[in-house]
Amino acid sequence: MKSPPSDSCANFAGFAGKAASEGEFQAWLAESRTWSEAQLERWGLPACGSDGAEAPWPQPLFEAAHYTLFGGGKRLRPILVRLFAEAAGGSAEGASRAAAALELVHTYSLVHDDLPCMDDDDLRRGRPTCHKVYGEALAVLVGDALLTRAFEVLAGAKGASAAGALQVLARAAGGAGMVGGQVLDMTVEASGASPEDVRDLQRKKTGALLGAACELGALTGGASPVACAGARDFGEALGLAFQVVDDALDITGDAVTLGKTPGKDQALGRATSVTVMGLEGARGEATRRAAAAREAALGLGFLESSLVLRLVEHLGSRSR
Amino acid sequence: MKSPPSDSCANFAGFAGKAASEGEFQAWLAESRTWSEAQLERWGLPACGSDGAEAPWPQPLFEAAHYTLFGGGKRLRPILVRLFAEAAGGSAEGASRAAAALELVHTYSLVHDDLPCMDDDDLRRGRPTCHKVYGEALAVLVGDALLTRAFEVLAGAKGASAAGALQVLARAAGGAGMVGGQVLDMTVEASGASPEDVRDLQRKKTGALLGAACELGALTGGASPVACAGARDFGEALGLAFQVVDDALDITGDAVTLGKTPGKDQALGRATSVTVMGLEGARGEATRRAAAAREAALGLGFLESSLVLRLVEHLGSRSR
Repeated sequence: MKSPPSDSCANFAGFAGKAASEGEFQAWLAESRTWSEAQLERWGLPACGSDGAEAPWPQPLFEAAHYTLFGGGKRLRPILVRLFAEAAGGSAEGASRAAAALELVHTYSLVHDDLPCMDDDDLRRGRPTCHKVYGEALAVLVGDALLTRAFEVLAGAKGASAAGALQVLARAAGGAGMVGGQVLDMTVEASGASPEDVRDLQRKKTGALLGAACELGALTGGASPVACAGARDFGEALGLAFQVVDDALDITGDAVTLGKTPGKDQALGRATSVTVMGLEGARGEATRRAAAAREAALGLGFLESSLVLRLVEHLGSRSR
Repeated sequence: MKSPPSDSCANFAGFAGKAASEGEFQAWLAESRTWSEAQLERWGLPACGSDGAEAPWPQPLFEAAHYTLFGGGKRLRPILVRLFAEAAGGSAEGASRAAAALELVHTYSLVHDDLPCMDDDDLRRGRPTCHKVYGEALAVLVGDALLTRAFEVLAGAKGASAAGALQVLARAAGGAGMVGGQVLDMTVEASGASPEDVRDLQRKKTGALLGAACELGALTGGASPVACAGARDFGEALGLAFQVVDDALDITGDAVTLGKTPGKDQALGRATSVTVMGLEGARGEATRRAAAAREAALGLGFLESSLVLRLVEHLGSRSR
């Protein structure tokens, strides 16, 4: 983790200390999730109603995309976008398009990951996956349409920073980021992988997009470039903490709680935190990564009682 | 076709009359293709050399993407971007990123279309398709990476128009455009389709991206909004003329000349110009659509001897 940027407090300090109690945190989490759903309803798919100016999608595509986009989920990425936008002094409204765009990218990646030629998953968020319901061909195209929609939504934001925001998202989502992480996930051999190999693929596969969520939130909130970089570093650290818990849950979780098929990593021979350091080793790594994420959060100028630290704890102790 | 925009001549007239002879046209086509390849070399994949500041892609992804991106092709879309940028008074240099972005989007769409769950094609541009060489999973991810790269490249353009250009590309490529056209191609039944159904799917599948190529060229060249819309209309008309010839070649062409497998539309039961109006009917439709594209070109203020009209003829009489 890099040392805290010197001007970060000035960017984020006004936000520190919010939501001191567990009850307030849970209420904030629920409200943020509701807000995220609303932004997805607003931007996720074209509005083709009587007053909608947008050209419609063909009905089969719209239906499959709607099924996939509104199938639950933690909505962690839009929540982070809003959190960092407000922390930087911006409004939730200003973060609306970026929040929807991040979830669109995340959702497309799940649709393509679940394909038979990739992870071949039948279950996602407790429901049949997109290709199980609509077939493989339409699932490929749903993913393509959601990814393209993410950029369309973000490009619709006014102001000179729109192209900059789009570049942040594209870098995090593309071959050097999330897609690259998926490639490593598929190609790195479990038997020959080192903990560093696994960390690198997790930083790309999970860290890059969570980093982009925090960075884009900060950016739309008007944070300085240094503070935006600090936000990205925190998001990446949170992603690493998140992924190691995910790896452990693949071993210890059950389908009902997880909402997806457990044991997939093992069945696919994937290199994970558990395969390179064992279950106990992965639990120790989870503790260390959560500590690193907390440190990164403190570097932003958030106080210990802030939402961000509670979010780190919340994700570290999750069971799904 | 809409009536010509009133201020189009002022935007494009300086370009008219260029390349009067067939020899000059062929030389221009060859030079434009070479320029297009150079822009793809420059922007298509991350530059990770000693002075390259970009984060690298994992080696298997880079290799498969490189194989796919540099496998020949007419490079029609970047050629149109440059043509319209120069016609509007702009420079080839100013059109460079948009040219690469259009070809990236086109190439990703071919990779996904060729997948076993889609058209299941073994041959593209005379070579084995991406998934035949690198496997299905990597082919899905190559497509995802190329699409994302297109937006990254275009977002890197400086200036207030970058966000507008991004929106034009996303709309043309997404669910209401090219991806939507693919969905219709898969779901419209050949037996029950009308000529209008086929025309609608072709306008989305092929017309939208060619329209975006012309529009983005005009936009980067500094054309007025009305002239940009005229450029898009011409590109869509060219796309419709192109697609009907493609449909006929699927019946009459051979694999060596086409560089792809003939008879695919028929084997897949697709609704094409040939299935709804027969081969002779499709040839008549090709003549009518080429005439419509010429009319749209004349509406832009190009003279009859211009490159654009020669391009319409060239594409209408092609054998691959």
